[in-house]
Amino acid sequence: MDKKKLITEVLKNEVVKALGCTEVGLIGYTVAKAKPEDVYSIKEIKLTLDKGTFKNAFSVGVPNTGKFGILPAVVGGLLGNKDNKLEVFKDIKYDEELEKFIEGKLKIEVINSDVYCKVIIKADKLYEAETKGSHSGKSMPENLKNAYKNLTLKDFIDYSDDIPEDVVKLIKETIETNKNLSTPEVPEDFVNLDINDEILNYMLKKTVSAVYNRMIGANKPAMAIAGSGNMGLTATLPIIAYDEIKGSDEEKLIKSITLSALTTIYSAYYSSYISAMCGCVNRGGIGAVSALAYYIFGTDKIEESIKSFTANLPGIVCDGGKIGCALKIASGVFAIYLSLHSKVPYTNGIVGKDFKECIENIGKIGQAMKLVDNEIIEILKRKI
Amino acid sequence: MDKKKLITEVLKNEVVKALGCTEVGLIGYTVAKAKPEDVYSIKEIKLTLDKGTFKNAFSVGVPNTGKFGILPAVVGGLLGNKDNKLEVFKDIKYDEELEKFIEGKLKIEVINSDVYCKVIIKADKLYEAETKGSHSGKSMPENLKNAYKNLTLKDFIDYSDDIPEDVVKLIKETIETNKNLSTPEVPEDFVNLDINDEILNYMLKKTVSAVYNRMIGANKPAMAIAGSGNMGLTATLPIIAYDEIKGSDEEKLIKSITLSALTTIYSAYYSSYISAMCGCVNRGGIGAVSALAYYIFGTDKIEESIKSFTANLPGIVCDGGKIGCALKIASGVFAIYLSLHSKVPYTNGIVGKDFKECIENIGKIGQAMKLVDNEIIEILKRKI
Repeated sequence: MDKKKLITEVLKNEVVKALGCTEVGLIGYTVAKAKPEDVYSIKEIKLTLDKGTFKNAFSVGVPNTGKFGILPAVVGGLLGNKDNKLEVFKDIKYDEELEKFIEGKLKIEVINSDVYCKVIIKADKLYEAETKGSHSGKSMPENLKNAYKNLTLKDFIDYSDDIPEDVVKLIKETIETNKNLSTPEVPEDFVNLDINDEILNYMLKKTVSAVYNRMIGANKPAMAIAGSGNMGLTATLPIIAYDEIKGSDEEKLIKSITLSALTTIYSAYYSSYISAMCGCVNRGGIGAVSALAYYIFGTDKIEESIKSFTANLPGIVCDGGKIGCALKIASGVFAIYLSLHSKVPYTNGIVGKDFKECIENIGKIGQAMKLVDNEIIEILKRKI
Repeated sequence: MDKKKLITEVLKNEVVKALGCTEVGLIGYTVAKAKPEDVYSIKEIKLTLDKGTFKNAFSVGVPNTGKFGILPAVVGGLLGNKDNKLEVFKDIKYDEELEKFIEGKLKIEVINSDVYCKVIIKADKLYEAETKGSHSGKSMPENLKNAYKNLTLKDFIDYSDDIPEDVVKLIKETIETNKNLSTPEVPEDFVNLDINDEILNYMLKKTVSAVYNRMIGANKPAMAIAGSGNMGLTATLPIIAYDEIKGSDEEKLIKSITLSALTTIYSAYYSSYISAMCGCVNRGGIGAVSALAYYIFGTDKIEESIKSFTANLPGIVCDGGKIGCALKIASGVFAIYLSLHSKVPYTNGIVGKDFKECIENIGKIGQAMKLVDNEIIEILKRKI
């Protein structure tokens, strides 16, 4: 497959629209498939979840419920229609009484697996359902992934300079969709800080508000990149904000967002779709740094900025989808902006000699953090 | 031992003056002990270093040489006087020719151990020397550490409200010493960014310049906290900067810096002195957040701010002492400032229910990251 075809194929598979955090939808949908007719006959509900689903559902907003976490996802599933699949919470009216009834009856087991949810309900008899999925979304074939990993920064820049028409459409949709999740302000009871710097403050508000809205379960989609909505927001909104504040240049913005998506996906392929390392900052951040360096300074500063970013935040943990992600991503936006204006030598720690080696090294740190995920799961389990 | 005596004992042992990054001094000193009279008779120099010494010496400035890393530390040791011990580079005149002669003859082995440096020099005969140390500095007895870990945030606040005279002197010295490492600007070829926000910009410049100066081997001491100079700078300079900008209040500053040192040490005892997790941000940051919350809002906001900080940067890796630390610490300063103005619920990931549980959870993440250190060492080794 020639480079351009390969990149287009990867982009179309890895930049997709997603409504809400899919993990709670997965739980609700599986519960809806298993539920008995009389929900008040339930004696026990046992969930078996893979680590990623457990972590990302643990404290995230459940659409249409005003609630957060696994219990309301289960209750929502009991109230929802299984035909709505991952959008199972679409038409429900939340029921506090049912929540109280279910609360003491919920048991959760966490296993090592790709996306997995099994529900066993004890009522007049046993009811069971399971849903399997993949954290890698439409899961690209390995050979295409490997071919993509062999591409260079120059290949991505060349592609961004001459984007096929249908991809331009996809990128425009990405810009509009993610912009639409932003609100001018972040609620004061979450973050009450104005940085007196127009550019930084605007990039922060635009990005942080969108992540916050997504995490409370706002009923608006995001364009996910490489399997994560928050990663898609981090990889796009700082650039969209910068473009708005500098007087919009649509062509430059489209090129930049394309480059961001390409380098974010590249980072994900060198790390993994989900990990104990925060992908939004570590992978989406790489995308945003590449794109902003390209937007502001042209191609010359990209590699230098990526090196500075590699010297900065790698390692920051992912402890699940939740409003706190917006704080991590705020620090990410600051580090992204700082990286555009910094320079570190190759000798510095895990900084690579070039773009590729930086991404490889961050990926290696992510892989080495696997055990950290177990510790995070243990901390969360103790909270139940 | 009563609480006040215990805290005073711990503070006096853990807040100490340190000149330069000790790891290169350790290498230089050990080389100086082993060196043959005629350095040009050397056929091979073999260093055996523990991981921490290797990592922290790898790219850090060697005082009085204008150079960075292990090779100039070895050359400096060959030129230096062993009687100067860790200040072995004090009176040397660096010799480029000697560096060229030694460059191909240096072999490095990295082992698991507390602070360790062994030098074997092959020349007319074998010359050997070794130096052992502890990353825990004067290494407090375990029982005192454990007693200290059982103290509460309230104990630390009470102590900071009524500080013994000799500790006031120590804290004043800490403030003066660390302030003295700062310069008004950071070199433009390292960071060229002005944030147009007076408070944030001043906190950043004050802290980042001091860390940078320390990392290039500036001939000025820092007050280290819990074994790290950079941690001491991170735990003090944001507060010192804030105090200066708001019109100095010496009494409040001394109380705040005391509280910062106490909570930084507490964090170190729950994690470890050195780790694969950046202590400056993760432990010094806890100190700075506690102290700034105390300084700006009084005691009520400390715990809430610590929770927000726990939701933010934990996990960010330590890949050795080097100028890049200043970038991590810049992100740390931003996250510290953001944490003072944010609020996250307990349900959020690793956020603890209170001050103690936050520190415990961050410590657990640090402990779980041990394997990451091996990956970092491998990345550094490939650079030799």
